[in-house]
Amino acid sequence: MLQVNASIMTIGDELLIGQTIDTNSAFIGTELNKVGIWVTKRVAIGDVKKDILNTLKSLAIESQIVIITGGLGPTADDITKPTLCEYFGSRMVTNEGALQNVKDIFSKLNRPLIPRNLTQAEVPDNCIVLPNRRGTAPGMWFEKDDVIYISLPGVPNEMKGLMMHSVIPELQKKLRLPAVVHKTLLTSGVGESTIADRVEDFENSLPSYIKLAYLPAYGLVRLRLTGRGSDKNVLEKELNDQFIRLQSLVNEWMVAREDISLQEALSKLLREKNSTLSTAESCTGGYIAQLITSIPGSSSVFNGSVVAYANEAKEHLLSVRHETLVKYGAVSEETVCEMLNGSLQHLNTTFAIATSGIMGPDGGSDEKPVGTVWIAVGNKKEVKAVKHFFRFDRQRNIELAAHAAMTMLFRFVNEQQNYH
Amino acid sequence: MLQVNASIMTIGDELLIGQTIDTNSAFIGTELNKVGIWVTKRVAIGDVKKDILNTLKSLAIESQIVIITGGLGPTADDITKPTLCEYFGSRMVTNEGALQNVKDIFSKLNRPLIPRNLTQAEVPDNCIVLPNRRGTAPGMWFEKDDVIYISLPGVPNEMKGLMMHSVIPELQKKLRLPAVVHKTLLTSGVGESTIADRVEDFENSLPSYIKLAYLPAYGLVRLRLTGRGSDKNVLEKELNDQFIRLQSLVNEWMVAREDISLQEALSKLLREKNSTLSTAESCTGGYIAQLITSIPGSSSVFNGSVVAYANEAKEHLLSVRHETLVKYGAVSEETVCEMLNGSLQHLNTTFAIATSGIMGPDGGSDEKPVGTVWIAVGNKKEVKAVKHFFRFDRQRNIELAAHAAMTMLFRFVNEQQNYH
Repeated sequence: MLQVNASIMTIGDELLIGQTIDTNSAFIGTELNKVGIWVTKRVAIGDVKKDILNTLKSLAIESQIVIITGGLGPTADDITKPTLCEYFGSRMVTNEGALQNVKDIFSKLNRPLIPRNLTQAEVPDNCIVLPNRRGTAPGMWFEKDDVIYISLPGVPNEMKGLMMHSVIPELQKKLRLPAVVHKTLLTSGVGESTIADRVEDFENSLPSYIKLAYLPAYGLVRLRLTGRGSDKNVLEKELNDQFIRLQSLVNEWMVAREDISLQEALSKLLREKNSTLSTAESCTGGYIAQLITSIPGSSSVFNGSVVAYANEAKEHLLSVRHETLVKYGAVSEETVCEMLNGSLQHLNTTFAIATSGIMGPDGGSDEKPVGTVWIAVGNKKEVKAVKHFFRFDRQRNIELAAHAAMTMLFRFVNEQQNYH
Repeated sequence: MLQVNASIMTIGDELLIGQTIDTNSAFIGTELNKVGIWVTKRVAIGDVKKDILNTLKSLAIESQIVIITGGLGPTADDITKPTLCEYFGSRMVTNEGALQNVKDIFSKLNRPLIPRNLTQAEVPDNCIVLPNRRGTAPGMWFEKDDVIYISLPGVPNEMKGLMMHSVIPELQKKLRLPAVVHKTLLTSGVGESTIADRVEDFENSLPSYIKLAYLPAYGLVRLRLTGRGSDKNVLEKELNDQFIRLQSLVNEWMVAREDISLQEALSKLLREKNSTLSTAESCTGGYIAQLITSIPGSSSVFNGSVVAYANEAKEHLLSVRHETLVKYGAVSEETVCEMLNGSLQHLNTTFAIATSGIMGPDGGSDEKPVGTVWIAVGNKKEVKAVKHFFRFDRQRNIELAAHAAMTMLFRFVNEQQNYH
């Protein structure tokens, strides 16, 4: 079985000085991995000719495929194309297809076409042009000394289109790739170490061609089994058996037996139960609502949210009693339970989530320090409220509170089932 | 003047197969850059001993500082520490301070301490331990042949704490660093090429020690001037003068003359005008509310939001008339204007934003294709509504709609000023 190694090279000062987060490499790595190409190295360098040339040379020694992104934009600091010309010994020519694409895009956007944009259609004469349907900079495919080099624009949406429509299918056609199978499950509310201890014997007993990976993020831990081999059917059967063993070990913490987000797992469960959800959010400020509405088709389970940041909004839109706010404060069990009932009532849903807390950095007191969050979940018959304490910065506290709230509702909905 | 070069090395298969997006490198790059250390390369490799050793060697040739993150977690696939031992010729010892820290954290979290966690306190005997106040894995500082190597945990919050409290202050103490000054402004609603054309002469006239960078993201473009030199005062004066020239060139598109987000620029403007904001969100699903509430202290300008996903919620919580929804549909000028008025009324604010659209991938029609979004902004006296068409995927359409809506309100609030 052939092991195909790839490396990813990203070009641009903006990646080195941290103004841009490199999401492209993650996407490229995921897609290559899915078809059995192993990414062994990722290198980011600046818009410096010498560094581009040296990195191309050194990556070509260890990889059969080098994917290059960035450095193709219309502004002055882009030197990637001239440097590729030098590396591949080519000269720049205008590609007619790419030129027509630039013209079409500008006429569709109704923006004036300036000379700077026309240079986007120029490419080295010894590359195969990969048409970019989403933008002006075409992809370029080079081959030299048995190494494939693919240069893609750095704009994520354009890079993704080129990867899915050109790069992956062409690589599959060209190379004999191994079978790769993944199986992923999602746990919530438990630490990586505790899981690792529970599955230690299982992990040690795995055959060498199956690997277990832990992928922790904000109170969630994904567990992924990856198998590689030559016979896809044999591999799938073995991986399925191991995945069932793994599930039984972590069952109490599992929220999904597939590679989906917590909000997708929750939406799916609600859909299965023909149920609807609303949220009443104070401290999470709409974060839960936007997570759920980020899922296509979420309107079938999600009616809406009242983001009641001001106390006045809690009273007016969620029917929280003025006396409750005065007596117990906004961050209290009493308030969060009334918010929950208001959400169930005014948004007319089966279930609801309510949050109220102090996310920081200011606004804490001795009695209610920064990080104190009350979360309630429930339906018209039963409400559960829990006080949490998150000890991180504002944004992370919001994310942790949102995950804790969705996990709590997930378990609440599941328990309901057992009594009906 | 000494030019100090650094490189960043991230370790972990999860980065190569794309399950984790590398936000750490961006943070590290930003913070090093601020104190005058130039990051020339970033390399990500897997949990493979040979690759770690080779990368350490090759980065040490071109950099005075190598920052290493990841590979320090408690699960089995971590081989970073033994490999560092080999590279630096050290043996592993338990560090008493780090051990106490592990014990303190577990007792505070009230979680059982298992042997796996205790190994977190083991470090190579020839490093300086950098205490981690936010987690169990300590930072480690090594020096070898005039190169500084710093190993940090991969958990972003822990890495950030170590960078800010230990790494940056220690590097500043140890090295004689150049002065670096940045000035950034934010534009909205204009393309990178159009700006580039406008500022071309300006850019060409800049002295060699001042650089202009374009940082585009979702309908916004940041422009940043960076100056480097030996005399901070001279540099600041020169950079200020150039920054004023740049502002005058792009004034019509500028929403902030500092390095802040669009939501921060909008919140600031509202605070200056002693005004408040609410949102009525359908297609953006709470995304605008969560952007605004992600800013500390946003409660002084933001009362709340009604995320009215279901039509019933639009009627009940925003007083949109049933006949309007029947006659014009949810995605229409009429509905979005009534949503806006409902938001102003029920959330009792000076200004409001309302959105209604079809974000995809499904739900479009010939008349209202996927990507159609109506946005309204206004106050009790005047409402403006505009139809947009976004042509990307769901998540990007949501982000673009949110930015377009906040930009529209920003300009609306600014125009109000001119008439009073």
